[in-house]
Amino acid sequence: MQHRSFADAECPIARSMEHVGEWWNLLILRDAFRGRCRFDEFQESLGIARNILSRRLKRLVADGLLEKHLYAARPARYEYRLTAKGHDLFPVLISLMEWGNRWAAPDGGPALVQVDRKTGNPVHAELIDTNTGKPIDPSNLRLKAGPGAGAETRALLAQLYRK
Amino acid sequence: MQHRSFADAECPIARSMEHVGEWWNLLILRDAFRGRCRFDEFQESLGIARNILSRRLKRLVADGLLEKHLYAARPARYEYRLTAKGHDLFPVLISLMEWGNRWAAPDGGPALVQVDRKTGNPVHAELIDTNTGKPIDPSNLRLKAGPGAGAETRALLAQLYRK
Repeated sequence: MQHRSFADAECPIARSMEHVGEWWNLLILRDAFRGRCRFDEFQESLGIARNILSRRLKRLVADGLLEKHLYAARPARYEYRLTAKGHDLFPVLISLMEWGNRWAAPDGGPALVQVDRKTGNPVHAELIDTNTGKPIDPSNLRLKAGPGAGAETRALLAQLYRK
Repeated sequence: MQHRSFADAECPIARSMEHVGEWWNLLILRDAFRGRCRFDEFQESLGIARNILSRRLKRLVADGLLEKHLYAARPARYEYRLTAKGHDLFPVLISLMEWGNRWAAPDGGPALVQVDRKTGNPVHAELIDTNTGKPIDPSNLRLKAGPGAGAETRALLAQLYRK
């Protein structure tokens, strides 16, 4: 890792990236959503070097996205399962999936789509107004300071909305 | 870059990561959504080394996420603007923002939230059924082969739904 840390950033996107931005992390979590939980399953799915996978899993556990469960005692073997914090990344993965299907699909079209289990209808991540439950157009959005806003956020908002 | 390429993967998440997974890319795109478009603006915002920023911008342009516009002739100076392909990553960034505010906020609470410009209501990325427009619970989803599915996707689906 040669980049600076964003752990002290105020921006929630930068702070999220601090948890999931490292290459492999979202792909490991994707695999966890698909029911993979053992070291060898991740390794086989991703073709990742074992030492790197080991480091990434350790970090994802330390960050609270995965948790380790002992599933065999001699020798000790662990499974990695999504925590609530990890599980909550599902909308991020769905959004990436939609984008990939729209903009980076194989020549023959999307290979994999997410559908309703019963109806088979396709699923879409949509921005909705939390209070009214209605969809909202991205062009009608603005950023706003939250309770934790400090100098960084104030500077950003001043720059964005000075015009 | 020491990791393998996922350009030939069938999984749309892996294919998306091939475009945006490299560290810095989503943060550069975030800045573009916030109206930053010049080299020095990205550099100042991110504290990134100039040679790395230059490489990342070149790649984002080559991948069609940003496009270069000449804004001064002598010397030649370029702005970087989001393409439709880049713009379409907005739901990914909103999802990361929501996650960051829920799970990785500063001690004082979220610093930055996305709200409706007129009403000030908070915004949320929700999974909806494309046909009915109704919200759908993630536990009711399943993966399904699309038209471009090949051996990789068939193996994945067989593994996921054999039980």
